[in-house]
Amino acid sequence: MTGKALLPELWTEILVPVCAVVGIAFSLFQWYIVSGVKLTADRGASSEKNGNEDYLIEEEEGVNDQSVVAKCAEIQTAISEGATSFLFTEYKYVGVFMVLFAAIIFLFLGSVQGFSTKSQPCTYDQTTTCKPALATAVFSTISFVLGAVTSVLSGFLGMKIATYANARTTLEARRGVGKAFIVAFRSGAVMGFLLAANGLLVLYITINLFKIYYGDDWEGLFESITGYGLGGSSMALFGRVGGGIYTKAADVGADLVGKVERNIPEDDPRNPAVIADNVGDNVGDIAGMGSDLFGSYAESSCAALVVASISSFGINHDFTAMLFPLLISSVGILVCLITTLYATDISEIKAVKEIEPALKNQLIISTVIMTVGIAVVSWIGLPSSFTIFNFGTQKVVKNWELFLCVAVGLWAGLIIGFVTEYYTSNAYSPVQDVADSCRTGAATNVIFGLALGYKSVIIPIFAIAVSIFVSFSFAAMYGVAVAALGMLSTIATGLAIDAYGPISDNAGGIAEMAGMSHRIRERTDALDAAGNTTAAIGKGFAIGSAALVSLALFGAFVSRAGVQTVDVLTPKVVIGLLVGAMLPYWFSAMTMKSVGSAALKMVEEVRRQFNTIPGLMEGTAKPDYATCVKISTDASIKEMIPPGCLVMLTPLIVGFFFGVETLSGVLAGSLVSGVQVAISASNTGGAWDNAKKYIEAGASEHARSLGPKGSEPHKAAVIGDTIGDPLKDTSGPSLNILIKLMAVESLVFAPFFATHGGFLFRIFS
Amino acid sequence: MTGKALLPELWTEILVPVCAVVGIAFSLFQWYIVSGVKLTADRGASSEKNGNEDYLIEEEEGVNDQSVVAKCAEIQTAISEGATSFLFTEYKYVGVFMVLFAAIIFLFLGSVQGFSTKSQPCTYDQTTTCKPALATAVFSTISFVLGAVTSVLSGFLGMKIATYANARTTLEARRGVGKAFIVAFRSGAVMGFLLAANGLLVLYITINLFKIYYGDDWEGLFESITGYGLGGSSMALFGRVGGGIYTKAADVGADLVGKVERNIPEDDPRNPAVIADNVGDNVGDIAGMGSDLFGSYAESSCAALVVASISSFGINHDFTAMLFPLLISSVGILVCLITTLYATDISEIKAVKEIEPALKNQLIISTVIMTVGIAVVSWIGLPSSFTIFNFGTQKVVKNWELFLCVAVGLWAGLIIGFVTEYYTSNAYSPVQDVADSCRTGAATNVIFGLALGYKSVIIPIFAIAVSIFVSFSFAAMYGVAVAALGMLSTIATGLAIDAYGPISDNAGGIAEMAGMSHRIRERTDALDAAGNTTAAIGKGFAIGSAALVSLALFGAFVSRAGVQTVDVLTPKVVIGLLVGAMLPYWFSAMTMKSVGSAALKMVEEVRRQFNTIPGLMEGTAKPDYATCVKISTDASIKEMIPPGCLVMLTPLIVGFFFGVETLSGVLAGSLVSGVQVAISASNTGGAWDNAKKYIEAGASEHARSLGPKGSEPHKAAVIGDTIGDPLKDTSGPSLNILIKLMAVESLVFAPFFATHGGFLFRIFS
Repeated sequence: MTGKALLPELWTEILVPVCAVVGIAFSLFQWYIVSGVKLTADRGASSEKNGNEDYLIEEEEGVNDQSVVAKCAEIQTAISEGATSFLFTEYKYVGVFMVLFAAIIFLFLGSVQGFSTKSQPCTYDQTTTCKPALATAVFSTISFVLGAVTSVLSGFLGMKIATYANARTTLEARRGVGKAFIVAFRSGAVMGFLLAANGLLVLYITINLFKIYYGDDWEGLFESITGYGLGGSSMALFGRVGGGIYTKAADVGADLVGKVERNIPEDDPRNPAVIADNVGDNVGDIAGMGSDLFGSYAESSCAALVVASISSFGINHDFTAMLFPLLISSVGILVCLITTLYATDISEIKAVKEIEPALKNQLIISTVIMTVGIAVVSWIGLPSSFTIFNFGTQKVVKNWELFLCVAVGLWAGLIIGFVTEYYTSNAYSPVQDVADSCRTGAATNVIFGLALGYKSVIIPIFAIAVSIFVSFSFAAMYGVAVAALGMLSTIATGLAIDAYGPISDNAGGIAEMAGMSHRIRERTDALDAAGNTTAAIGKGFAIGSAALVSLALFGAFVSRAGVQTVDVLTPKVVIGLLVGAMLPYWFSAMTMKSVGSAALKMVEEVRRQFNTIPGLMEGTAKPDYATCVKISTDASIKEMIPPGCLVMLTPLIVGFFFGVETLSGVLAGSLVSGVQVAISASNTGGAWDNAKKYIEAGASEHARSLGPKGSEPHKAAVIGDTIGDPLKDTSGPSLNILIKLMAVESLVFAPFFATHGGFLFRIFS
Repeated sequence: MTGKALLPELWTEILVPVCAVVGIAFSLFQWYIVSGVKLTADRGASSEKNGNEDYLIEEEEGVNDQSVVAKCAEIQTAISEGATSFLFTEYKYVGVFMVLFAAIIFLFLGSVQGFSTKSQPCTYDQTTTCKPALATAVFSTISFVLGAVTSVLSGFLGMKIATYANARTTLEARRGVGKAFIVAFRSGAVMGFLLAANGLLVLYITINLFKIYYGDDWEGLFESITGYGLGGSSMALFGRVGGGIYTKAADVGADLVGKVERNIPEDDPRNPAVIADNVGDNVGDIAGMGSDLFGSYAESSCAALVVASISSFGINHDFTAMLFPLLISSVGILVCLITTLYATDISEIKAVKEIEPALKNQLIISTVIMTVGIAVVSWIGLPSSFTIFNFGTQKVVKNWELFLCVAVGLWAGLIIGFVTEYYTSNAYSPVQDVADSCRTGAATNVIFGLALGYKSVIIPIFAIAVSIFVSFSFAAMYGVAVAALGMLSTIATGLAIDAYGPISDNAGGIAEMAGMSHRIRERTDALDAAGNTTAAIGKGFAIGSAALVSLALFGAFVSRAGVQTVDVLTPKVVIGLLVGAMLPYWFSAMTMKSVGSAALKMVEEVRRQFNTIPGLMEGTAKPDYATCVKISTDASIKEMIPPGCLVMLTPLIVGFFFGVETLSGVLAGSLVSGVQVAISASNTGGAWDNAKKYIEAGASEHARSLGPKGSEPHKAAVIGDTIGDPLKDTSGPSLNILIKLMAVESLVFAPFFATHGGFLFRIFS
């Protein structure tokens, strides 16, 4: 009945690392191409050297090309140094956390059997012997650290790539919008492929190394591996929250004084907060997002692996089938590679209006090809029939059923992407309606924007619900986990188009700061407007997959903790559900307030500089950028701790004091409530940003009737955009980490809670 | 073991109606006192007639008293007629709905046993014989209509009282803030006592009449009675949504043109939307809220009764114990009566700063005395030990345990009230922080306001969770239902202080329109600021009790539908949970967009009038109030239908197509998510309103540094206030109806779903 997979074990052992290496090689190759755009002054001396037949805009306008290039290089260096310095400060603090939490993992898990070094009966199959709980403690700690380091590395490399690419995008914008697009997109691809391949490779190596110790005890092996997901996501939390506060404090602060009070353009070099703002894009949107999506990937792989280890794959020691999640990711890298080539080499962007369709095509192409890829992997990587652990029993599943599970996740992702695009792109009526409501001022703009965000939740939730229903019905929690993997299988492409946004945003900032022509700024603005939409799409993916991942992790936790049912109609579960549903609000209150307070400080500093530095407004004196950078840095480091503690401590406190039933309720509650808050916050923010850009661009009769820059409707739109900043870049994207992280943490600590949990109820009864 | 209650049945039969009649009499007495303030011109001729020793402000300022009184009377008539006319239009539409839905109830419930007139074995106790399902269909339909009519009547009477009282409050404001307070408060009490007593009386009579047919079949009797709750709440939904859209379209429209563009004061008679705005307060905040709280009361009573009927009270036919919920409400009326006397006769308000403490004392006093009342009722109205139905088994409960269940609900209500006050009153730092953030403009104001709303959710959720845990652990769903009743036992006082708000708001409006002195406006503004806080407190109670009520109803539904567990870890439940948690967002999107669109229309009309009517700004020409009233009316009637359908159809569609498990998930999801959205929306809106009032009043050094009216921070505060309007008066308060209504509807249709539900899953399997 439960035969072996067609693909021999040796082939699997070769295929996975080869795909990972191909991904890394492709990423380096893209980097090499991007590096062809020279930032040194000698390049400007003769433009023919680069085979450029058009005139550069500067040459037409008689601007000295060499000085522009030098200025761009200088600004890029400042941004890159600022970002590096902040990340090192941030990593110093999270490093301390990492060490402390590693100790907690070791101590809590070690205490499950009193640090005994004796082997024990396995949890699920009591007839066989497994490694001691102490081994799980040691290896969970190791995999936690590995996951954390990989996550940090992912964020850091992403930032390095982005700050390497942004000035190059600016320079290419002189040669046309298509050229600039390609540079920004290639740079995004560098990050996407590097992260996807790196995550896969580290996981693969870790599994193989752990296997040396664990041997045939796969239950223990993959239980330890879940620490990898926890490490990845906990770093992502700090990255998202810290980076999010940093970038939005600077952004809001810069806008409130610069755009609203002083009436100077965005990214104007006279604005003292402008460097902090640009640094923020790289540490928040890039580094934070890199860590975040790596975390999602790691967690969904771990969730699938831990369930598989107690299913027939694990019991029969079928290594190929066991590594099905990694095979999916491996094929995903190849599929994304083909998809990327379509954008960079097959098609070409000639006009502004082609940008969004090109990015959307990336999603469609990767999804279609990946469907075939999943079919192939399901056919050769799985036995035709096998059993999956389903809360105490084993459920028979066919390989085509599992194909459907992965595919439904993949396609649900595409639907979420499309819906998000519809609600956040200014090419469609929802954003145009929001822009139109600016006619009557900021209040109606906010009311319409909030309503848009709420409404944008509907279809994604149905898409997620359908994926859950299909995958859960076919293959229980394993099905849900692979559905999440399906949604994330095209992660390299997803990250590429997501990273593209902040790179374009920065490119625009550099153009402005380097005093380049308005026509260049228009081009980068067009790139950036598309980038807002893709950023929202990326967040949609992150949230959708987070919902699936955390459900799968939740299911694995419940199995591991030995809970039979999570019955809403028991007092312990229902209070957990209610409190869990409250957590996203508590968390959002903290992060929004943090951004608000930090922005107030920033505003005061920027005002102070404008008032006290003579010649600043006239452009004859330089502002003190460093103080603003310091304000953002201090605020984000200080303010990321309380929300971080809320998320990290809740499962520990609830599990220890109230027990696994209440913790189950908390996980379910935060999942179903957090998804809604996250989607609506991201989309509301994205819509406001693009409503503002819609008015600024003035590309239609309607848009021109609302503009130009500085008109009353435009001012109202700027207010909406500012409100949306913390929603879309701080609270919203952090919430998906909240729901995943609490679930994976509960899973890692499940053995501890099962042994020592429910302290409070025990002393009272 | 399960003896009888101490109180003989006859005494119960006398006590309940007597308390209800006392409440009605007290209400009429208060009305009589309020009517002592004469609105006819002759009264002004000699102020000594009223024993008034102070000079009236007009006399000091030499304003003709007689003309002021006449003007107030005229405005009041206009408001009252506008409100009456709107309510009649609204009731015409909901009347059609009521007839249709009554037919649905009859057909669906009748079809359960194919309209058979034969008696059948009871659902829970299969050994005895119960009345046919057709009888349940008939009597459920009757009680639905009764509940609907009572709800409509409650709203209508409330509106009549409020429009009777507002001009009288204005006139009394000339004699001092204390006098005005007493009139507004007494009028609120008229409404509070009338509604509480009326709801109790109708329910009592209905039970006794139904008993003539049902005899000893209490299971069927109280199953039919649940229709009363459904009728009450469905009318409340339309009242809240329709009234909420009406009032906020007018309010937002009036403010956007009047305050922001034309820089004329709020409620200025030159503003064409001003009458619609004042009408709106009465149809939305008063009539809507009256229906809403009546619905909560009816539902919690029904939830408790239906569970009790299958517990030992019902099985042993102990009528006194059976009517325990009604006894609690009866004693509640007496307790509130004493509490009201404290405010009207024992203490006296002399200064503005005494208003809020006086209202807060009402809450404290009623809660303390009611605790004693509950203890007495639990002692004499319950056997010392009895059994309660607990999902298939009977659980033994002591009377002191049930006392704790009711008391925990009561005190949780007080805590919610205090927390709400803390977050929405401008006497504390949260609102002052929001006001301070206006320094940097509307964007920071909105960010801080949203964060405040999110944060204000935390403690109320813990309070609700503790009540649920205690009451659920002691007495299962009966415990939760009586906890809700406990929270609502002081409903007469709650309604009094809640209705006080819009009455004061209107009084201020009338003062402005009648061209009265600024000192009077200052007094009514002070009353109104306290009213914003009490309105938020009222909403807090409504939401808290709604959470408990809907959980109890949900439990009753699950029992009636024969579901054993609602396990989150089954696909059918988890998708229900996810979609259910989305519904409050969908609903809010609809209502906010409706307010926004209607406000845009209003803005255009008001602008048109200012631009085309010569002499309007100068005050020489009268605006066309009627067109604005028509815009609000048309918008609210049209726009209340889609959200109404969403709420009313969801349980029917989910139950019929997907079955009771998925419906259970939907109910749980909408409950845990809706509570958060509702609390945060109400408090955010209340805080913004009072932040604006804080700046306007300028009562402290800090407040003056932000003002005066028309300053940049004040303009930012006005924007926040406008955004908060639909949140606090349309979406927020409607959401608690959403969660209750879906639960009670599921309960009423439970027999139908149990027989015919899950159509879709059945054809697929």
